[in-house]
Amino acid sequence: MKRGRDGLIQAKHTQSIKKVTDGSILTPKGYKAGGIHSGLRYRKKDFALLMSETPASVAAVYTQSHFQAPPLQVTQESIAGQGKIQSVVINSAVANACTGEEGLANAYEMRGMVATRFHIPDEYVAIASTGVIGEQLPMDKIAYGCETVEATEDGNQDFQQAILTTDTCQKSACYQVQVDGKTVSIGGAAKGSGMIHPNMATMLGFITTDATIDSDALQKALSPSIEKSFNQITVDGETSTNDMVLTLANGAVEHATLTEDHPDWDAFQTALQLVCEDLAKQIAKDGEGATKLIEVEVTGARTDEEARMIGKKVVGSSLVKTAVYGLDANWGRIVGAIGHSEAEVDPSRCDIYIEDQLVFSHGTPCPFSEEQATEDLDNEKVKFFIHLDEGDGEGTAWGCDLTYDYVKINASYRT
Amino acid sequence: MKRGRDGLIQAKHTQSIKKVTDGSILTPKGYKAGGIHSGLRYRKKDFALLMSETPASVAAVYTQSHFQAPPLQVTQESIAGQGKIQSVVINSAVANACTGEEGLANAYEMRGMVATRFHIPDEYVAIASTGVIGEQLPMDKIAYGCETVEATEDGNQDFQQAILTTDTCQKSACYQVQVDGKTVSIGGAAKGSGMIHPNMATMLGFITTDATIDSDALQKALSPSIEKSFNQITVDGETSTNDMVLTLANGAVEHATLTEDHPDWDAFQTALQLVCEDLAKQIAKDGEGATKLIEVEVTGARTDEEARMIGKKVVGSSLVKTAVYGLDANWGRIVGAIGHSEAEVDPSRCDIYIEDQLVFSHGTPCPFSEEQATEDLDNEKVKFFIHLDEGDGEGTAWGCDLTYDYVKINASYRT
Repeated sequence: MKRGRDGLIQAKHTQSIKKVTDGSILTPKGYKAGGIHSGLRYRKKDFALLMSETPASVAAVYTQSHFQAPPLQVTQESIAGQGKIQSVVINSAVANACTGEEGLANAYEMRGMVATRFHIPDEYVAIASTGVIGEQLPMDKIAYGCETVEATEDGNQDFQQAILTTDTCQKSACYQVQVDGKTVSIGGAAKGSGMIHPNMATMLGFITTDATIDSDALQKALSPSIEKSFNQITVDGETSTNDMVLTLANGAVEHATLTEDHPDWDAFQTALQLVCEDLAKQIAKDGEGATKLIEVEVTGARTDEEARMIGKKVVGSSLVKTAVYGLDANWGRIVGAIGHSEAEVDPSRCDIYIEDQLVFSHGTPCPFSEEQATEDLDNEKVKFFIHLDEGDGEGTAWGCDLTYDYVKINASYRT
Repeated sequence: MKRGRDGLIQAKHTQSIKKVTDGSILTPKGYKAGGIHSGLRYRKKDFALLMSETPASVAAVYTQSHFQAPPLQVTQESIAGQGKIQSVVINSAVANACTGEEGLANAYEMRGMVATRFHIPDEYVAIASTGVIGEQLPMDKIAYGCETVEATEDGNQDFQQAILTTDTCQKSACYQVQVDGKTVSIGGAAKGSGMIHPNMATMLGFITTDATIDSDALQKALSPSIEKSFNQITVDGETSTNDMVLTLANGAVEHATLTEDHPDWDAFQTALQLVCEDLAKQIAKDGEGATKLIEVEVTGARTDEEARMIGKKVVGSSLVKTAVYGLDANWGRIVGAIGHSEAEVDPSRCDIYIEDQLVFSHGTPCPFSEEQATEDLDNEKVKFFIHLDEGDGEGTAWGCDLTYDYVKINASYRT
């Protein structure tokens, strides 16, 4: 049977989409970025700025947590203004979450300082914060950052560095796509998991494109991309107060405005999704203490949504995660996670593969090479494939293994 | 403010309910039990039998997994017959799950052998299996068990031992309650978490009572008890293919048949719930690698269901679990788990206590003694209390900490 969707969506648009190695948020035309050390962290960069030459169309997706942090509230207010953003400013170290009225006032002040400095309206400024929750922003350092940080044409590495907290590496991605025969770039930077007391995993994503598209259409392209990427990764099932993915489109490449009726809409949406997926996988792989990226692909579900739900259940299972860490070809735990899902599953029709080996067929285990399975699990990327034979729904989820280091990092931070 | 429900439901019926220390499934009149080594496990007891002198009313709750194992199917069929059960037979070591047609035939055969030996109808026999999944029952050993196991008046310890897999201790509980001025006993035995390859956590509970009650009423008493006990514990969020709680009531104590209209109904239902809660807490505390029982009590939710949902989210959070292991008074992770829940929460009204200390009030952190908190966390039982100020809903959930040993047990079983 045909297994795997790898490259499938890309293959559909092979002619028009290509990955840009070493591309970033500054590959699209008309953007500058930078990052500095403002004193919020001990030595590392902690203050980042992204600027578009012109006010850009904007789309965003926010955390589903009930405890949305003040910076998210302020950014949503900015976007609601004109539907345009020109400047994005981000601090790490302090998340400005669970900070009440004072935290909200500080978030407004941070936005205002950037607007004043660059002579743009407040509502053209988006802000984000990540780090410790429950502490107020040290406004002297924030003021220093707002007044000092510079955006340049080659500041992408500084930007990528300054938004990190406990991430072990920078995360960036870039794809190019042909729209009306012109090359449009989509670049992204992200930070991922890292929970240090009393911090939480905050996922932030910043995506730039020089495509010409209005904010509503951009949101239509972004939302499904997020569903299939950032929302399909799990490190430990937690959701942060500060999660946000923000996308700017400044129209620096002139072409017929992208709408769902444009002949290149699908290619553009696919390229945006590939950027999101690329960043999401980098975040999953950099989960705390993780040694492996786990990918779970589900086909034959009743709907795409159910396929994604099952994939996420499997990749989020502590038992599956520890089994992968232990190089244990433990199909029983995959069965357990599938059975535990809310999606409709008929066990007697279910097949499970560990990499290329069928290990569970139509509801019962089948013989396989344990040796080969152990070898397959001993890689940086491990793939499980599940076919349900219920319909045409398909989806993929990504996560990481659960290791001694996860417990160590999260249990012993303060001891 | 009034905090804590500990003893509250008991207090309501103080006169009529009392806990029986060292009580068991054999404290109620008219039952016998036993357990032997049938050869399924290397040396430990692995085959258990529970007998009622007379056919007993029966109520049961089963796993929600899509992959229900054959023994559960056969037991459900037995119960559907006359609504009476007289004999329960359980094997450990092999779960008879994911075993297809052959597994179902073996389950019927196991039931049949017990029925034949004791000269009772097949449908008076319930069966249960726990252990490795994906393997067929070795029917020679099952046959030996069915022919050899004896039920006696003091066989409760053997029974309790024989149903265990990787549990580190036996689990039993007993409460007595006055019905029409007569003493009715409710006893229980359980096994809990333990996932060894390719095994899964199977939770089995067996409850006996000498109350006079028909099966429908018994089910009405059992279902809400399960909701507030077994369904409120989590070790690692997994659900087994074989989970089951079975309750027998043989009417050995004669009183007016218990129905919801009986003046002692509430007391009886409460006592049954206390047995379930007692067993559930023992299971949570004996989670793999666990060093502590974590109790999360939620009040002020819109509904009891939402309170239970939030409690379970908090107690199931890997970040909360590792923080407790690390003696880290990390209220931020509790906030994260609450925010992540699907229940309705207004952060600005939310209070969080670690034991007796208020650490988070109306959406913002408040000063507390870290020293006291560390001391409070350094106990075998740790309690978090969350008040939402949204309504009158309340509920409690139980779990355990996430430790190096959890990873070790689950990652290194086969290496």
